[in-house]
Amino acid sequence: MAVIVQKFGGTSVADTQRIFRCAERVAAARREGHDVVVVVSAMGHSTDQLIELAEAITTSPNPREMDMLMSTGEQVSIALMCMALHKLGIDAVSMTGAQMGMRTDRAHMKAKIQGIEVERFAREFRRGRVVVAAGFQGVNDDGEITTLGRGGSDTTAVAIAAALGVGKSGGACEIFTDVDGVYTADPRIVKNARKLNRISFEEMLELASQGAGVMHSRAVQAGQKYDVPIYVRHAGKPDEGTIICRETDDMEEILVAGCALKRDLGRISLRRIPNTPGVQGMIFSLIGAANIIVDDIIQTTHGDSASLSFTVDHGDLADVKIAADKALEQLGSGELAVEIGLAKVSVAGVGMRNHSGVAATMFKALGDAGIHIHNITTSDIKISCIVPKEHGERALQVVHDAFGLGDDSSEDDGAGERERRREPRPMARKT
Amino acid sequence: MAVIVQKFGGTSVADTQRIFRCAERVAAARREGHDVVVVVSAMGHSTDQLIELAEAITTSPNPREMDMLMSTGEQVSIALMCMALHKLGIDAVSMTGAQMGMRTDRAHMKAKIQGIEVERFAREFRRGRVVVAAGFQGVNDDGEITTLGRGGSDTTAVAIAAALGVGKSGGACEIFTDVDGVYTADPRIVKNARKLNRISFEEMLELASQGAGVMHSRAVQAGQKYDVPIYVRHAGKPDEGTIICRETDDMEEILVAGCALKRDLGRISLRRIPNTPGVQGMIFSLIGAANIIVDDIIQTTHGDSASLSFTVDHGDLADVKIAADKALEQLGSGELAVEIGLAKVSVAGVGMRNHSGVAATMFKALGDAGIHIHNITTSDIKISCIVPKEHGERALQVVHDAFGLGDDSSEDDGAGERERRREPRPMARKT
Repeated sequence: MAVIVQKFGGTSVADTQRIFRCAERVAAARREGHDVVVVVSAMGHSTDQLIELAEAITTSPNPREMDMLMSTGEQVSIALMCMALHKLGIDAVSMTGAQMGMRTDRAHMKAKIQGIEVERFAREFRRGRVVVAAGFQGVNDDGEITTLGRGGSDTTAVAIAAALGVGKSGGACEIFTDVDGVYTADPRIVKNARKLNRISFEEMLELASQGAGVMHSRAVQAGQKYDVPIYVRHAGKPDEGTIICRETDDMEEILVAGCALKRDLGRISLRRIPNTPGVQGMIFSLIGAANIIVDDIIQTTHGDSASLSFTVDHGDLADVKIAADKALEQLGSGELAVEIGLAKVSVAGVGMRNHSGVAATMFKALGDAGIHIHNITTSDIKISCIVPKEHGERALQVVHDAFGLGDDSSEDDGAGERERRREPRPMARKT
Repeated sequence: MAVIVQKFGGTSVADTQRIFRCAERVAAARREGHDVVVVVSAMGHSTDQLIELAEAITTSPNPREMDMLMSTGEQVSIALMCMALHKLGIDAVSMTGAQMGMRTDRAHMKAKIQGIEVERFAREFRRGRVVVAAGFQGVNDDGEITTLGRGGSDTTAVAIAAALGVGKSGGACEIFTDVDGVYTADPRIVKNARKLNRISFEEMLELASQGAGVMHSRAVQAGQKYDVPIYVRHAGKPDEGTIICRETDDMEEILVAGCALKRDLGRISLRRIPNTPGVQGMIFSLIGAANIIVDDIIQTTHGDSASLSFTVDHGDLADVKIAADKALEQLGSGELAVEIGLAKVSVAGVGMRNHSGVAATMFKALGDAGIHIHNITTSDIKISCIVPKEHGERALQVVHDAFGLGDDSSEDDGAGERERRREPRPMARKT
């Protein structure tokens, strides 16, 4: 009997009717004889409602008290999910983060998992019970309730799966969500985007950090670290979804697994700044102190002076400009340039490690479409181009087409979806 | 520096604005230099909303899971109360039942407190912090979340006050509610009812069990057991309210402290049943098995046969009739009579222990008003009469007047209320 971890997000448990639908999936897995752990998020908008309550009291809530408040959302869900399972004749027991021994560090609102008491799960499995575990929350060594921050519930599920040895035992970690799986591109933008049957952790991480919203990169990282295959599936459909797993040999035959679009970026450039040791550290300390998350950073040098540019979310531009001005003041030289209205299109694939020409294919596709490329950044399995925001969606489409990622069968034929496999296909162009 | 325990009920913390108002009272006590514990209930109707969620899933929720669900209500309140205190510049920390070491037995949904870890409070006091404690909840030896059932949050407050030695240290346990204090009768019915400055635990217990809704008898019992004076005060007014405390000598000079009305009772009579040992046990086992709470029980005997009658809430009559029919069937003899539309008026006072004539005064008052008395039951400090429901309110008023409990000054003069003291006053009649 394998261990199956099933995670249901907030939309999937938004009301009691949907909770029942999820409970039926759990019941089915249990009736197949598996040991099942269900991880649930807070119901629908309940998290927002709790935040609103806190905001009505203070603009700077104490992080410990925020965790005390927010953790109630998942606690409501686990109790209701358990009741629904009982109603379906499945023996089940709910557990808060503290009860399951989900130990974290002391960083409230963004705690990191340090360990899980596997014995608590094993004890309930021996009793024939499904364990319904609260996502997103843990407990630190002082007995304080902590929460894991963004992507927390997915991370909870993967961490439990890792602790219970799902990777080795042949079990599964299933993330049920409101999309069918991972696509070659966002299907709301690219109409012929194709659902992937498999994608590697690394590719998923690159795509997630470049704007693909299916899974939070933190959970993918946990899956990669502990080698837990993650099944992304639609909560309301029987489809198989996408497996995020360790890279396999056949994956390398594909140059590009998928592409992603990040919108509404702004670019800050600090030109003609002195290129002396410590300059970059000083600049990004100022920006970090303003709690701004910086996207890609590029530096080029010309003799003694350097030109440093980086992208940020549009909303952070005002704050980042203040920090950058401060930096230039400290440096005593340099110029500041701010560009708005940018987007970033990225392609990722483990195959590009051993194949040349991917970058050329991408640049040529954008060039043929008359789309101007601002910055270019790359990693060994990813290429990103900053383009004007108004061409963002078209850029995604032409790049998607250039790598032949599209679904060539009828766009509206959802029925064939389950049969499709990720198969090596010749790249359209390999200049 | 004394320890002050302040408890705020659900109505007092129904929204964030009211939470601030309560926080200001806490802040005031803290600024006077006291060590303060705040006990809070769930916000307004949040408990009802949680129950509705559970009911949408199942009609017979698992008690453990109900406790898991219900305990979130208070957890939300403690976090918000803490944030409000922080906003007012008061250092404070919230604690769930588990965190404060509120140990209970294993009876989910009606757990009994077994002990409190005083050191956890003392540690926070040493740090200069107000402790915001979740009412109504605890944790059993298995680490399971339990709730205390009805009157739970009041009981939490009194139990904490007892554990922290409030009775000896000269501190106080203040129960803030939406009434001014304990009155000689329900002021919504008896217009000249007078607020009491003091009432003994025993009197309060008799009145609470006879329909006075101010305090749940369980919390009063805890106060009596650990000799913790309880201050019942209005959350929105500066008034002193009523002190529920140990009986003092001067209290005995008052025959009757207050009176209460219990409405909507029905009476079941089992007549001509055999008066053999075990009969009563059999009957009330059947009734108890149907989860019916029985009010007063009276039995009289005539030779070998007995007549047993008891009152129950109107809503329980149908169930009780089924149980009583079953009992008669087992006995093989007897008759069943069911009366509906009854009410019970009661007077209570420690003074009646040493004074005669209280019963006579009460009966005469009812008789003069032409009100028929069905059952009569008494304890050493209480007399109750079952009367027709339609005369219930009038019965309360005439009994109240007969013992001179009323406020003789202008009925609408609220301003003088604070000056009034419970003072021995001659009884109107002592027949």
